[in-house]
Parts: sequence; structure tokens; C-alpha cells
Amino acid sequence: MMLFGLEESTVISLAGGVRASAGPAVMDAAAAADVFARAAWTGIAEPGDGAAGLLVQGLGAGPALTAVLDLWTGARLAAALAAAGWPLTDDLPAQLEQGLQRWRPRLSSAEVIRSLQQATRVSAGLLVPTDPSWPTGVDDLAIHAPIALWWRGVPTALTALSNSIALVGARAATGYGEHVAMEASAGLVDRGFLIVSGAAYGIDGMAHRAALASSGLTVAFLAGGVDRYYPSGHDTLLSRIATVGAIVSELPCGAAPTKWRFLQRNRLIAAASAATVVLEAGWRSGSLNTAGHAAALGRPLGAVPGPVTSPTSAGCHRLIREYDAVCVTTAAEMAELVGERMLNLTLDLPPVDGDTAGFGGRTSEQVRVFDALSTRAARTVPDIARRAGLSTSAVQGALGALDLEGVVREKETGWVRGR
Amino acid sequence: MMLFGLEESTVISLAGGVRASAGPAVMDAAAAADVFARAAWTGIAEPGDGAAGLLVQGLGAGPALTAVLDLWTGARLAAALAAAGWPLTDDLPAQLEQGLQRWRPRLSSAEVIRSLQQATRVSAGLLVPTDPSWPTGVDDLAIHAPIALWWRGVPTALTALSNSIALVGARAATGYGEHVAMEASAGLVDRGFLIVSGAAYGIDGMAHRAALASSGLTVAFLAGGVDRYYPSGHDTLLSRIATVGAIVSELPCGAAPTKWRFLQRNRLIAAASAATVVLEAGWRSGSLNTAGHAAALGRPLGAVPGPVTSPTSAGCHRLIREYDAVCVTTAAEMAELVGERMLNLTLDLPPVDGDTAGFGGRTSEQVRVFDALSTRAARTVPDIARRAGLSTSAVQGALGALDLEGVVREKETGWVRGR
Repeated sequence: MMLFGLEESTVISLAGGVRASAGPAVMDAAAAADVFARAAWTGIAEPGDGAAGLLVQGLGAGPALTAVLDLWTGARLAAALAAAGWPLTDDLPAQLEQGLQRWRPRLSSAEVIRSLQQATRVSAGLLVPTDPSWPTGVDDLAIHAPIALWWRGVPTALTALSNSIALVGARAATGYGEHVAMEASAGLVDRGFLIVSGAAYGIDGMAHRAALASSGLTVAFLAGGVDRYYPSGHDTLLSRIATVGAIVSELPCGAAPTKWRFLQRNRLIAAASAATVVLEAGWRSGSLNTAGHAAALGRPLGAVPGPVTSPTSAGCHRLIREYDAVCVTTAAEMAELVGERMLNLTLDLPPVDGDTAGFGGRTSEQVRVFDALSTRAARTVPDIARRAGLSTSAVQGALGALDLEGVVREKETGWVRGR
Repeated sequence: MMLFGLEESTVISLAGGVRASAGPAVMDAAAAADVFARAAWTGIAEPGDGAAGLLVQGLGAGPALTAVLDLWTGARLAAALAAAGWPLTDDLPAQLEQGLQRWRPRLSSAEVIRSLQQATRVSAGLLVPTDPSWPTGVDDLAIHAPIALWWRGVPTALTALSNSIALVGARAATGYGEHVAMEASAGLVDRGFLIVSGAAYGIDGMAHRAALASSGLTVAFLAGGVDRYYPSGHDTLLSRIATVGAIVSELPCGAAPTKWRFLQRNRLIAAASAATVVLEAGWRSGSLNTAGHAAALGRPLGAVPGPVTSPTSAGCHRLIREYDAVCVTTAAEMAELVGERMLNLTLDLPPVDGDTAGFGGRTSEQVRVFDALSTRAARTVPDIARRAGLSTSAVQGALGALDLEGVVREKETGWVRGR
């Protein structure tokens, strides 16, 4: 009997299906349990959940999951962490208790099994931190690092992430921005870099396309499961990336992209790459969020200037003016950024989850609750809590604020978006 | 008997003619002698001549001129400076001796009288450092500060220099650059700033024009005498500036602009303004020279980004990347520069007289000698020395190097440019 009361052979078989490309498909029970538990955690905790990260890093993925399934209290989890050598702070039990309330609604073996089977079906693999091809850059996120990564593609694209540059920018790119993205991507491929981006329309898509056209390696980080290509208009592009590069996500198969997940995906782009360059971005572009993560991690950050008359370059100029981003104008100058890694540790950080991130004044819990609502189907508080990965009390608080804001309403059967 | 053996009444009359607008036209003999001597020095020493500046600041303009006319040696001048409290360095006598060799060929009372008469004719005035309307920013140039300034225009334009921003850039400006210059100039005028520039084609001209169109104050610093408008295509523009703003030069009337004088004029633009902004500039644009002076003086320096695909913005991006220029995109951001004055004292200085300045690997003496040559009229070494403001031995050395370079040639009657 193992996790969720499953048979050992079932866990070994399910885990083996997603390990075919990255490690030994035939595993011992302990390795299989770890893979299975990490796969489960990617569905139980929302990306970047520090309490989940702490628990998994402190106790191991399997024991942490077992403890949650065995209804341990926050205090007991904190004591176990302290026994494992982690510093015990006053508010740790309460934080873990809040975590338990977020995770419990999602504890479903059926969900885990379904995501593993779907992954096997689309030949997606699961990477764990001990894998040789694990992108070690993400470990700098500490307890906010991903617990595991789902991926499709060729293994060399994963190992080449150590020599990668992220090219990001506006969806509504101009011809100028797309031209610059193309030149940058092709020029960096020529210099041996892998191109990381987010597969969005505009700059991201052009960065991937130019890398492919130059026969370079490219990796797309997605905000949903690697079995669904988003945006759908980039279906063909993502298929090609999955064939010669890699598509990576910390969400399990079947997971939909949400605003929260896009923002957390941005932290992976910044952390997995040796440097981040913003090619074209409006004053409040989401790519400034990626830039903020890069700066917070001490990663070199570059921004390409453009006409001051163009609103789509205003975000780049803002990064240069206010956040000490290096003004980069050619692929050669972007490549130089990597030589400067860790130089800018003392800069003032841009707000990673303030207005820059496009939260529009909402707290992260409000964003996640709003993400979890539908305009048509009314949803109950427990349902919203499970979808958002939040406790029911946190959902109720957020719903109250969103209700005051006038962007949600309560119907007889639950909550919906809009008035 | 006064300077050059002239009568006191002659000196008072000549000096009074150029002081009508700036001070009392009727002066005592001592004040007249100082004005006359300073006017003489502007013709004897090339702009930025540190030895001349030291001598005038240490002994006074009149006594310094008398000493030179009385054939004092470098050692005697150095001793007089030491007696006046200046630190006596080992090489000071030799430096002053070299200065004497530069100045002696130009000691001509007729020249001084002619330039004063011409100034009176075109209503040009002579400013001296003790005048209330003297632009005190230039005093930061220390011994390289101008000994006096010739000017035409309205006095309020001079006093408003304390609240001015220099807008400079490429002659071969693009439509984008001219648009940005227009917006910047008009926006800064709206914020109460005077616009300083160099009256060149392209960005400079647009900066002056937009200031005039916004009924703002504007000052043009010229590289030749204020009686000759250069470039000639900006005749009408310069006439308008002289009517409602001011035209300023440290060269006496009749003096031609030379490459050396353009570069020295740039230091005045940077020193007289509270901040300098480069709007559009190629990789080796002369406006980078102005920027270099601004940085060397600890003045705030801004650069306007542009398309990375435009060679005329490459110099601006270079200033942002390499010389810590602030990336400025609007007039409001340019105005903010002035609040940041003196913050950038530790930055690496761009080469003020290296390749950036357009010397193309030549020494400053070679530039000045080449300036002094004609393509048609052959000139003797003493003639070249007088025109270049250099000693005959320095001229001979420079001619030798230029000859090796193949850009000058010796004819029977003297030296000419070209082969």
C-alpha cells in the first residue's frame, strides 16, 4: 500500500510512463513513489506555493504528501520540519495550516492518475530536481521552485537551458518589435544560445520561430498543461518546438492556463535562463513581470530601446530608466549580458506582483479566485477553493473584495464573474 | 600709455563700444584695460588654452598681456604666478614657455582693434567673468574656462542660462530625430527652461526653432565670431536668435570656425547648461563630444533612445550603455535631469578628444594645424603657427606627421592641404 492507498505496482507503472525519456522507466518503489508524489503535488499546489515547496524540500515529496493525506495538523508538520533541521519560526504552523486548507480540496488520486495517463498518452515526461537534465537555474527560486516539471521534446533542449537567454515581449508587437526579435533570436542562436520564451503571440512567437528557422534550440514555458497548446493559434509552432526543442510546464496535463499561472510561469522563464531580454513592451506589459523576476533573482536583465514615440517601447525604456536594465541593441550586446551575471544584486527591484504584473490593485488571492470563476457556470466556495488552490476562508475573503469591486456576483447556486 | 602702447583714451573708447549692453559704457582706465586685454586674449589664445587661462586667472588679464608683450620668459611668468599664490609645479615654466611661443605670433594690436570695431559695428558685446550676466556654469572649466565671451542678443537670455538644458544631436537628423527635438524643446520651454544648442543643421536647428516657435528663450554657442553666421543656411535662424535670445562665442569677430573650435565650443555648451541631452547621434557623432564634456563636468547627461535599426540612434544607445547617460523619452524626464545634478561624479568618462571627437587618430595639434591650412593658398610655418595658435616648433612637428599621413604637402611658398 502506497500513496492514496494505491498498490506499489500501480504507482511504479504510472510513474514509469512519464519517466521513459528522462530516466530509467523501471524504477524501485521508492523512486516511483517520489515521482508519483511530485506529479501529485504539481496538481495539488498552485505554482510558486512556498509552503508546499518548503514541505517537499524538508520532508521529501512522498512523506509530505502522506502527511497531508494522514490529516496532520500545521503544528505537527512544522515540528517535523524542525526535526529535519529547518528553522522553526513562530508563524510556520499557521502558514502550514493555511497550506493544508488550500491543498485538501485537491487531494484526489483520480486526478493524479488521469494527469499521469494523459502525459503518457502525449509522450510528456516528468522531470524531478535530481535529474541530470533538470534546469538548475530554477533552484534559485528556493521554496518557490517548481516541485517537478512536465515537458515534451528532446532532452538536449533541457540540458542546453544552462546556456539560454529569454527573449520576451508584447503580444501586440509592432513590425519593428518583430524584426528586432527575429534578429536577436537568430543572432543568439548563431552564438550558441538556446532561446527561451513563452509561446505567446507577438514577440514570443517570433523569438521561437526565428530560433527554429536558424536551426537553433528553443524552449517554451507554458502556463497550462503541456498537452494543450496555448494559444491555439500557435498550435503548429508549439508542435514544432516540441519536436526539435522542448515545451515545459509545472502544471499537470489537463490544467488550464490562468492569469496567476501566467505570472508564475514568468518566474520560471526568468529563473531557467541565464539572462532575460525584453524586446518590446508597453508601460504595463506582462513581460515587465518576467523582467522583475529576473532582477529579483539577480539575473542580468536587458531591454531593447525603440522609438520614444512608440507606446510598445515605453516598458523597455522604463526598465532602462527605473530598473537598471542594460540597454541592448544587438545580439552581441545581449550575449554580453551573460558575462555580467550577478553584477546587479543591489538594484531596486521592480514590483513583481504589483501593478506592473497587471494585477490592477488586486491581491494575489483575488486574482486566483477571479481566475477560478466562470461567467456562466455558478461555482460554490469549496469548488472555487479547489480550482484556485486556496482555502475556503481565503476564497470567501477574496470574493467579498471582488463583490465590492463589482466584478463578481452571487447566484443561488454559487458565484459567477460579472454583474 | 597702456597695452600695446595705445593711449588710455583709445582703450577706454574701444572697450566702451563693446560694453554698452552689459555694463557701464563709461569706464575707468583700469576696467577698460581689463576689457581690452580680455578681448585681446580671445584672439591670442585658442579656446580652452589652459596656460593662458592660468596666466589670466593668476595675474589678471592686463598684467598677463603686458608680461607677454614685455617678453617675459616662462620662468619669470611661473615665478609671478607662484608669488600670486598658485602652486609652482616643475613643468610650469616649460608649459608657459610653450604658451608664449603659441601666443607671440598673434600679438597684434591691429587685430584686437579690428575685432573690437567690428563687434561695435554689429552690436556685439563682450562679457567678462565679473559681469552679473556671466554664465557662471563655464567657471567649472577652471583654467580652461573662457577668458571672455562675445555675444549678441538680449541680456535676459544670458541670465536664464542658469536654468537651461542643452539639446544637441546629429546634423544628418532623421524625421524621427527632428520630431523628438521639436517635442523636447517645446516641452522644456513650457517648463521654463532656456534651450542651448549649437545652431548646426539637423537636431540643433530644430531645437532652436521649436524654442522660438514656443516663444521661449534660446542661446546658440558658435565656433567662430558672432559677426559671421555659421552655417550660412541658418542665417535667418541665427538672426532671429540674436533678436530674441542670444548668440555667444569665445572667438572674436572675424574668427572662422575650425574643427578645433567646434570641439571647444562643445565644452561651452555642456558647461553653460544645467544638463545636456543628446537627441539623435551616430556612433561617432560630434554631439558625443558635448556629452563627454557634460559627463566630465559632472553635469547630468541624458540620451533619447530610438530604433536600434537606425544608425542615427546608435550614439545615443552607446551613451546609455557605456557612459551611464540617463535614458530620457519625454520633456518631463529631461527636466528631471536637472534635479539630479552632480550625482554622476564617479562615472567613467568618455574620451573627450579621442576618436569620439572625430580626430581620427590625430593629436589635437595636428587637428589645429590641418584646420589652419588651405587647399589653395600655400602658408608658411609662422603663418600657420599664428592661425593655429601654436608655436612654430609644434607646427613643424604636426606638419611632419600630416605629411607622412599624406594629407598635406609642401610647395615652394609654403604648405597646403591635400596631395
